[in-house]
Amino acid sequence: MTTTAIKQRSLLGLKDLNAAEIESILDRAAYWEQQSVKLNPVLQGKFVANMFFENSTRTRFSFEMAQKRLGAEVMNFAAAASSVEKGESIYDTVKTLESMGIDAGVIRLKPIGMLADIAANVKVPLINAGDGNNEHPTQALLDLYTMRKQFGSLQGLNVSIIGDVQHSRVARSNLWALRKFGANVSFCAPDSMRASDLDAPYISMDEAIRADVVMMLRVQLERHAGSVMNSAEAYREGYGLTVERAKQLAPHAIIMHPAPVNRNVEIDSDLVEHPQSRIFPQMSNGVPIRMAVMERALS
Amino acid sequence: MTTTAIKQRSLLGLKDLNAAEIESILDRAAYWEQQSVKLNPVLQGKFVANMFFENSTRTRFSFEMAQKRLGAEVMNFAAAASSVEKGESIYDTVKTLESMGIDAGVIRLKPIGMLADIAANVKVPLINAGDGNNEHPTQALLDLYTMRKQFGSLQGLNVSIIGDVQHSRVARSNLWALRKFGANVSFCAPDSMRASDLDAPYISMDEAIRADVVMMLRVQLERHAGSVMNSAEAYREGYGLTVERAKQLAPHAIIMHPAPVNRNVEIDSDLVEHPQSRIFPQMSNGVPIRMAVMERALS
Amino acid sequence: MTTTAIKQRSLLGLKDLNAAEIESILDRAAYWEQQSVKLNPVLQGKFVANMFFENSTRTRFSFEMAQKRLGAEVMNFAAAASSVEKGESIYDTVKTLESMGIDAGVIRLKPIGMLADIAANVKVPLINAGDGNNEHPTQALLDLYTMRKQFGSLQGLNVSIIGDVQHSRVARSNLWALRKFGANVSFCAPDSMRASDLDAPYISMDEAIRADVVMMLRVQLERHAGSVMNSAEAYREGYGLTVERAKQLAPHAIIMHPAPVNRNVEIDSDLVEHPQSRIFPQMSNGVPIRMAVMERALS
Repeated sequence: MTTTAIKQRSLLGLKDLNAAEIESILDRAAYWEQQSVKLNPVLQGKFVANMFFENSTRTRFSFEMAQKRLGAEVMNFAAAASSVEKGESIYDTVKTLESMGIDAGVIRLKPIGMLADIAANVKVPLINAGDGNNEHPTQALLDLYTMRKQFGSLQGLNVSIIGDVQHSRVARSNLWALRKFGANVSFCAPDSMRASDLDAPYISMDEAIRADVVMMLRVQLERHAGSVMNSAEAYREGYGLTVERAKQLAPHAIIMHPAPVNRNVEIDSDLVEHPQSRIFPQMSNGVPIRMAVMERALS
Repeated sequence: MTTTAIKQRSLLGLKDLNAAEIESILDRAAYWEQQSVKLNPVLQGKFVANMFFENSTRTRFSFEMAQKRLGAEVMNFAAAASSVEKGESIYDTVKTLESMGIDAGVIRLKPIGMLADIAANVKVPLINAGDGNNEHPTQALLDLYTMRKQFGSLQGLNVSIIGDVQHSRVARSNLWALRKFGANVSFCAPDSMRASDLDAPYISMDEAIRADVVMMLRVQLERHAGSVMNSAEAYREGYGLTVERAKQLAPHAIIMHPAPVNRNVEIDSDLVEHPQSRIFPQMSNGVPIRMAVMERALS
Repeated sequence: MTTTAIKQRSLLGLKDLNAAEIESILDRAAYWEQQSVKLNPVLQGKFVANMFFENSTRTRFSFEMAQKRLGAEVMNFAAAASSVEKGESIYDTVKTLESMGIDAGVIRLKPIGMLADIAANVKVPLINAGDGNNEHPTQALLDLYTMRKQFGSLQGLNVSIIGDVQHSRVARSNLWALRKFGANVSFCAPDSMRASDLDAPYISMDEAIRADVVMMLRVQLERHAGSVMNSAEAYREGYGLTVERAKQLAPHAIIMHPAPVNRNVEIDSDLVEHPQSRIFPQMSNGVPIRMAVMERALS
């Protein structure tokens, strides 16, 4: 394969993908979602490595499900159980697995900016499963898929993204992707959680919960030790989707969250499986999205 | 599937299973044990998740072996390598994997009483691989299978269960299941390890080792810091199956243990592979038992 | 299978294997390397356990790749995520997995001398994936394969092995295997890293880098706290393959390393993917070697 072909099969982020390409992934996911048979071995004989240098049950599991439904051979490793422990660099690990003959790699890692360097130096397609606070493209794809399924179109849709925008790769990937389809994205966050690198309006919580899509972000309070938002109570009070606040949701609006949720911090426990919540459906949608992404990488 | 049908395919415990249902599992295990071909893909295209919120090499491995021998697609996760670390609740994890489309789940967890709540809220069959000190049904099934294989019938069989009964899910599942078949179950334990919730006679060590089945339990001495039994020596002296004590075993009696064993604590090292020991055969029997249980859940 | 047959299918080390047996493995690896189709299910229906009582991303991954390319069912466990934690002995774990019906086991463990005992007590072939500082036979096989591929023959080849020979199973397996083919093996190491049990000449660094094969060993400086070699700078200065030193390499010479490398300690970062380096090709070669070894064990 040429370097260009590999690059086209990789999925490093949504920022540089055009609307047509994103749409074709969403359409193919819709195809996969409709299949009644679970196992469709179009990737039989292909070897995929899930390389998680940062742990994640859900994301790894969702990719593995997608890969196995397509008949691929799947090999996992997590950093904590690997020789990354004894100082092996992420780059060397990826090169090692490439040398062993994998056909594609899914990778999650913390260091910002490293993924592009790695991708430029390997000869197999790479799928970004979350890199630092930069991008998490398959999460945003499943989010767009969930919104499109609900509303038919993304054009003109009002989407509020609420919480720790600064540390959120989900916020970034969603912002960049949604705008390509004409959606209006607003953020809502305390000062200490705003992202100076992103050009999007910040609105109040009162306004935020009147959007068509109310997307809550996972907050990691331990990152905000010095802030007034460093307690679960204060955060919930200021920026949580409480049962009280949920009464102001438009009847057609949906609640989203990339999960795992902090119950009773950014979202009240009773709202997680609320009729307007799409939190578990988002996870269901992640599988056909990742099937489409893996198929695009490998066939 | 209806809620009732799912409930009938789940295996949460043996307490509420009748003798006929247990017997049909044992019979099907016998069928699987007789197959000369290892791979029988009756569950091809089915996706199973092994969700271990408490570690166990042997039990997870035994389930995985059973699932793969039936051709199922297997996905594993252990709590230590998952986002349970960052506060995701067990319930949310199980719901997440259900949303992703698994057909059945095997689950091991510590919190007592949580399993029934979870099972009531998911739409796929769940298999209990050990929940707190409540039940460990597949262990008891393989124990019954081992005894039936040895003695033909369980009716009237004298079974001694020796050790930390209070903390033992193996003791509970065996007690409840064995009684359905007319076996006589006695416990033998120091005061600090007796279970106030179980109605069964406690007998002396001298008497206990004269049973048809002498089942030793794994002891975790760290749980008994304040007790006179808090040293390996004291425990072995009082309640261990020593080489000396083993001389009093009836010639037809068998030694059992759910493993892993603490050699030279609850059982002397030389007895683990003694001709009357069924400890490793128990592990062999676990695979066809779990094949029968997985097949019951999924086909 | 008879005990002798099992022993012949096992691969515990290269010390006791004759040249013809080693050569037949290398030849079969060459066959596998030439296959254009990745999946060759000659081991379909065979169950293999990778039992890593000491972590290793690369080695486990390479074995898993080899096993899956041959269509075997693969089950992994790592000690850190197993009941070895709660005191289960390595022997008991291996016997447990044997009881559950695996057809072969790959094992990595630390305690020296334990592997032979275990192998004598199980009835399935075992493959040594590294035991203490004794042997790492599949690593040496892939090293020989890499050298043979480069030079055609091993007869008369000058091989320098540089670094912590004392703690190196790679050095031992290579020494014993290379000599069977008439290669000349020399070591180069500071006093504190020499192996008193091995009968091979020690040469200076200046001489060592003029060999046909310059094999660098991974150094673990934390093992040498009391030594003058306890800093990365001192070690690199004395025994590292620096860019400066690499200028003295013969034009036909190759650089090898079992990986993972400590960049800028035993080898300069710029040399890892140097035209004369075979470090990543070694990893590629590991897969067909392990295919040959697994096939020998199981078919």
